[in-house]
Amino acid sequence: MLEPAKGIILLGDGMGDWPVPELDGDTPIEAAVKPNLDRLAREGETGLLDPIAPGVRAGSDTAHLAILGFDPYRYYTGRGPFEALGIGMDVRRGDICFRVNFATVDADGKVLDRRAGRITEGTAELAAALDGLTHDGCTVLFKQSVAHRAALILRGPGLGANVTDADPHAEGVPPHEAHGADAASEKTAALVNWFVAESRRLLAPHPVNVARVKAGLPPANIALPRGAGGAPDLPTFAAKHGFTGALVVEVGLVKGIGRYLDMEVVDVPAATGDIHTDELAMARAVVDALTRHPFVLCNLKCPDVAGHDFNALQKVETVQKLDRLAGYLLAHTTNTYIAVAADHCTPVLVGDHTGEPVPLALWGPHTRVDRVAEYGERSCAAGSLQRVAGADLLPLLTSYMLRQEKFGA
Amino acid sequence: MLEPAKGIILLGDGMGDWPVPELDGDTPIEAAVKPNLDRLAREGETGLLDPIAPGVRAGSDTAHLAILGFDPYRYYTGRGPFEALGIGMDVRRGDICFRVNFATVDADGKVLDRRAGRITEGTAELAAALDGLTHDGCTVLFKQSVAHRAALILRGPGLGANVTDADPHAEGVPPHEAHGADAASEKTAALVNWFVAESRRLLAPHPVNVARVKAGLPPANIALPRGAGGAPDLPTFAAKHGFTGALVVEVGLVKGIGRYLDMEVVDVPAATGDIHTDELAMARAVVDALTRHPFVLCNLKCPDVAGHDFNALQKVETVQKLDRLAGYLLAHTTNTYIAVAADHCTPVLVGDHTGEPVPLALWGPHTRVDRVAEYGERSCAAGSLQRVAGADLLPLLTSYMLRQEKFGA
Repeated sequence: MLEPAKGIILLGDGMGDWPVPELDGDTPIEAAVKPNLDRLAREGETGLLDPIAPGVRAGSDTAHLAILGFDPYRYYTGRGPFEALGIGMDVRRGDICFRVNFATVDADGKVLDRRAGRITEGTAELAAALDGLTHDGCTVLFKQSVAHRAALILRGPGLGANVTDADPHAEGVPPHEAHGADAASEKTAALVNWFVAESRRLLAPHPVNVARVKAGLPPANIALPRGAGGAPDLPTFAAKHGFTGALVVEVGLVKGIGRYLDMEVVDVPAATGDIHTDELAMARAVVDALTRHPFVLCNLKCPDVAGHDFNALQKVETVQKLDRLAGYLLAHTTNTYIAVAADHCTPVLVGDHTGEPVPLALWGPHTRVDRVAEYGERSCAAGSLQRVAGADLLPLLTSYMLRQEKFGA
Repeated sequence: MLEPAKGIILLGDGMGDWPVPELDGDTPIEAAVKPNLDRLAREGETGLLDPIAPGVRAGSDTAHLAILGFDPYRYYTGRGPFEALGIGMDVRRGDICFRVNFATVDADGKVLDRRAGRITEGTAELAAALDGLTHDGCTVLFKQSVAHRAALILRGPGLGANVTDADPHAEGVPPHEAHGADAASEKTAALVNWFVAESRRLLAPHPVNVARVKAGLPPANIALPRGAGGAPDLPTFAAKHGFTGALVVEVGLVKGIGRYLDMEVVDVPAATGDIHTDELAMARAVVDALTRHPFVLCNLKCPDVAGHDFNALQKVETVQKLDRLAGYLLAHTTNTYIAVAADHCTPVLVGDHTGEPVPLALWGPHTRVDRVAEYGERSCAAGSLQRVAGADLLPLLTSYMLRQEKFGA
């Protein structure tokens, strides 16, 4: 009798790419020296993976939801909750989440600048003045993000998410009054309107803004919520799959999704998220997490950074970092299946996500080894897995791991 | 003008497999001598078939539902109805079905043994004491299955399926009182509670139990229902597809599904369901059924048995039995398309179902013949059909058969 195996999904973030003239028409993966990734392909099954569906441009959030087994068309409830998860806020089921801008209003309450001069400093102090407010039995959680951006969580009983924006999406007009489409959302709308007024009352005299006015900068004297979304009604990872899992990842948004799914989110201090990240420290964390869980997802962020930076040569280097990470896993695991792929393409010619499939190799003790000998966008297109979707990846893995419930008798 | 053709789906139950060291790394299909299956591949189109979806571990019930054209995620209403169908009960639309254990309770009504000492004899007589009871305008249908297992059907107007289990799933406690989540299910729950009390009243003094107690065995003195499920609201096969069909199969569960779909279920006495089955008798039954129907599905059970028995060499033999069956069909049909596949994998290294795809060959007068020359898990991965799902199989076949309604104008 075979023992159940362990499983690793290893993702190069945004690693998929297009042919690059600077690389003689190779993609960065094809141009890289990558003996371990090639071994996974040569000794495993290969194919193409559409993170969401063919041609669909995936975000890191929607792609990871799909790859972790949760249909993003069902569970992706808008940017609000995922923005909040991404900056490390403690989103809970039932919460209503918003994206927020710090903005500038004049004495009449008309919006002068929807981004408060793209404020960069002092937003943590400003956010602290709003975080923790309570009203009508509900609590405000509020946290700054990058520059003028922030996130708002309203937490309390009986709140709905069908709320219009307070942000007027224009300047020279006052904030909009929020409205709810149903009784629960009307309760939320009343909270939003109270919150906007309260933000103006508390932020205007705040020392950060006093200093900004003195320096001739537009004060961040109001907070304007938009894009309401209910925290997704997701089961936990363990409830969905029947076993626990860990994440070794560098992207805050993916960490947030993992925490929300009640997965272990491993802290690797040397994982910096850029080209200087310590990929072997990440690999050691994966091997260590496998002593506690049958499944670990590991995402190396730097290929995506190189793609956003239009940097082909650096992207080749990041593939080689992933290769070293894979080599460590091959040397330090037994009875473990490894699937290597990417969460989307970030072509260096584009500098943003695109929707082409990514190469997939599935390696382990009992796979139906095919004839593909190299890991890459074009070589894996000839593989026996053919073309599968992100949502298929865990079933493909857990069947081999002998850890999947049978559907039927 | 072409005449509409006939069609056969030929399945080796659980025939898909993994590379087997004992077979020099071949799968049992790859290791078998199978000139007829290879001919179907060489002269036909080939590909991979996911019975449900990539990686999903299918049961025989869910896989056959999908392959017969009925989405199992929509129509698979739990083990209860399919258990009842599998033991030959006459399940009808509107019925509420349960899995049942014969169990032992003490004088206080506490469950001593949820399986009544795994009783093997006398269960038909015990079941007969409960079958046909009536209460509140409803009828009880009750039939024994293997060992301590049985199935219960409650038939009557206005019954719901959202009913909790009477089986407490534990020993040392009394049976649970069943509860319904809505008015219709409350009516069912009241019937269940009446049935459990009635089973105790009728089974305790039954001669089978008097003899068991005398022999020092735990009496099967109560019946404990669980897993309520409404009979699926399926159209008939003919209503769905526009033509009639027959099944030549050995698995009780698949026969039950066929009867429920109002298909002809052909009785082949020499089809024993094991390695000794007469595959040519089954082939003759297929050819004969094609005189009455445009479509026949034939499932040879023994590859699955060999898989569950971890028996690689026997599994190779079963593939060769399927090959002889296919040879007879090739020799005795004209203007007929044949699709050969499996309902799932039962790898001999695993002894249970797994979720990898199975090889598919589609053969007939006018297919787009591809370059694949052998039938097998890896050879067919290079075929022109690429990777399709079980639910695609009948449409692929009926299009070539010229028996499919056009969708649109």
